[in-house]
Amino acid sequence: MEIRTNYMDGNYAIYVDYGILEDQISQYTSQYTSVHFIVDQNVYTLYQDSTLSFVQNPIILEGGEASKSFDAFKRITETLLERGIKRNDLLIVIGGGAVGDAGGFAAATVLRGVDYIQVPTTLLAHDSSIGGKTAINSTFGKNLIGAFHRPKAVIYDLSFLETLPPHELLSGFGEVFKHALLKDEQTVKALMEATKNEISLDTLKPFIISGIETKMHYVTNDEKESGIRKFLNLGHTLGHAIEYKYKMPHGIAIVLGLYFMIYASNAEERQNIFDLKLFRHYFEQHGYPLDQLKTINETEMMTLMGKDKKNQSSGSIGFVLMKNFGQCYFTEIDNDLLEKYIKQLKESL
Amino acid sequence: MEIRTNYMDGNYAIYVDYGILEDQISQYTSQYTSVHFIVDQNVYTLYQDSTLSFVQNPIILEGGEASKSFDAFKRITETLLERGIKRNDLLIVIGGGAVGDAGGFAAATVLRGVDYIQVPTTLLAHDSSIGGKTAINSTFGKNLIGAFHRPKAVIYDLSFLETLPPHELLSGFGEVFKHALLKDEQTVKALMEATKNEISLDTLKPFIISGIETKMHYVTNDEKESGIRKFLNLGHTLGHAIEYKYKMPHGIAIVLGLYFMIYASNAEERQNIFDLKLFRHYFEQHGYPLDQLKTINETEMMTLMGKDKKNQSSGSIGFVLMKNFGQCYFTEIDNDLLEKYIKQLKESL
Ligand SMILES: NC(=O)c1ccc[n+]([C@@H]2O[C@H](COP(=O)([O-])OP(=O)(O)OC[C@H]3O[C@@H](n4cnc5c(N)ncnc54)[C@H](O)[C@@H]3O)[C@@H](O)[C@H]2O)c1
Ligand SMILES: NC(=O)c1ccc[n+]([C@@H]2O[C@H](COP(=O)([O-])OP(=O)(O)OC[C@H]3O[C@@H](n4cnc5c(N)ncnc54)[C@H](O)[C@@H]3O)[C@@H](O)[C@H]2O)c1
Repeated sequence: MEIRTNYMDGNYAIYVDYGILEDQISQYTSQYTSVHFIVDQNVYTLYQDSTLSFVQNPIILEGGEASKSFDAFKRITETLLERGIKRNDLLIVIGGGAVGDAGGFAAATVLRGVDYIQVPTTLLAHDSSIGGKTAINSTFGKNLIGAFHRPKAVIYDLSFLETLPPHELLSGFGEVFKHALLKDEQTVKALMEATKNEISLDTLKPFIISGIETKMHYVTNDEKESGIRKFLNLGHTLGHAIEYKYKMPHGIAIVLGLYFMIYASNAEERQNIFDLKLFRHYFEQHGYPLDQLKTINETEMMTLMGKDKKNQSSGSIGFVLMKNFGQCYFTEIDNDLLEKYIKQLKESL
Repeated sequence: MEIRTNYMDGNYAIYVDYGILEDQISQYTSQYTSVHFIVDQNVYTLYQDSTLSFVQNPIILEGGEASKSFDAFKRITETLLERGIKRNDLLIVIGGGAVGDAGGFAAATVLRGVDYIQVPTTLLAHDSSIGGKTAINSTFGKNLIGAFHRPKAVIYDLSFLETLPPHELLSGFGEVFKHALLKDEQTVKALMEATKNEISLDTLKPFIISGIETKMHYVTNDEKESGIRKFLNLGHTLGHAIEYKYKMPHGIAIVLGLYFMIYASNAEERQNIFDLKLFRHYFEQHGYPLDQLKTINETEMMTLMGKDKKNQSSGSIGFVLMKNFGQCYFTEIDNDLLEKYIKQLKESL
């Protein structure tokens, strides 16, 4: 399956399928004199003797946020330069979203930008493969130093997903679910049906592809996040606060945030657009810790949400809510009312 | 005097005059909620009680290459984030080319890019204010990590130049001279006439402006350096090798490189297009150490030039030469012949 981005220019292909890596890569490498690899340590350990046996002399990055430090950035760029990287070389970045962000930022800045290909290995990649965002972390927050730099291609070989630890699968699935909500009721229903017993990788491919297309729709005409791209923050306002407070994997916190979003959307519309019981049952069955919502402290959550760089006024907090499946809107909720909603949600659980 | 760039989009104004800083800045700052300053330490020490007294709470960077280290980059971005910089804030970078490069790279990457204004304070700025290049240094070479990020404006207040140390003035003037050569005979003649006794700042303004326009001509349609932008490397091939070997200020080494370029251009054309004696007398009179050329070692220079990232084939070295004033061409000179030219030049001195 091949999806093409539809920007004004600088478009690229996203290949999504099982077992496609080596073949697809060779279609690109033949155009370059030299190719350099950056690989996620955990991924390399698992696949160096199989899928990645063709990869020569990779730069290995510790997986996860450790790869997004200043020190790691310095190490990547210095190693590439030591190896004599040239402006017309190709960089191939293989790993989770973190290694993708770090490798992408190196590609954006070494020699003021070289071509690169993303090879994502986690479920979250249907999200990170679109948008051209690259970044490293600051002491003052995640992703605060970076660049927009689009890859030449994304090769998303779904075979990698088989070795994902269960909590990483759950976390990535949170964003798959968000993208279904952003699309339409039919997609949400089909996704819940396909995963009604378990989240099995065999059934996910169409939803991953639909997620990529949905994100693309929001990003294409709003690359720098001034308008509708905001809708991609669905569930993220409270989600980020919970992630920060309880050090929970991102996508798991987002599911808790989505549940609150559903609650608040019903409340704002004064009708039950969304069947809360149904969602609660579904999420809990798959192991999302909705009970945690009972223990959150309203005041603390309000403070954390207020600090988020996307919510800037003072007496209220900006939220993305839904009028229905696939129908988002952006609204400011007054602090008092928001606190009331959080309280009511806690009592309802 | 106001010059506007003529890119396809993302154009900006370059203001060049005496005593314009505070007025011009205020025309921009009023459009932003917050403004952050990055200032060259030496410049701040000299002007904090006068021209820069309106600057509040600046981030001070050590002047020169020290500001282009990874550590300095980390310190700038972390400080901006600690101060709560927002995407729609403005950064104003005041200092020499080094602080300009470092501050520009911070502006390119903090929050994935914020608006910035360059306020150059050295003579070299007529060069660095055009092109949108920002960078920091690697252990493996200068300017190897960076980004293309155009400023919103360049405010070039020539009053700053009065405090430039003499060798910095000479160094910056080397590039002014290069731009005159790139333009036409009339400009070279007028520049030599205007500076025949001394390089006095009062007479330089028109040549600075003409230098900006000349560079703009080469850069505008070739931002990423694939074609005619190469001509801006006039004098730089041997110049860089001399700069590296003798740790000479950049523009002073470039003048030595220009002298060799003139010599080689005559040799290639088998006629005296350029009056070597005249140039030698002029350069030496102003204190450029042409005698140093007598002591260079051919083999060493060849090795250093071969390493330069812009000269990639093996049996020859790429050079920009001139058929006449304002008429550059790019050519590969065979190693043997090049060595012969260097030897002959040494003997001629
Ligand atoms: N650029 C974007 O648009 C964008 C979008 C969303 C998220 N992100 C970023 O992505 C990061 C999160 O990405 P993530 O969820 O992929 O997590 P991750 O990159 O932190 O990876 C999670 C863990 O799984 C390991 N891993 C990766 N692939 C594996 C595999 N196939 N088998 C076994 N283990 C594997 C990693 O080594 C790591 O330890 C965050 O830093 C976030 O900011 C970026
Ligand atoms: N971005 C570009 O297009 C571009 C073009 C050319 C050069 N550069 C870069 O610019 C740098 C060289 O710039 P430069 O020649 O301006 O040198 P510089 O920035 O190193 O400054 C030289 C010294 O002069 C001091 N100084 C600056 N202004 C002064 C003033 N008005 N009075 C007294 N002292 C002053 C500085 O503190 C420093 O100590 C190099 O790093 C080079 O790579 C960039």
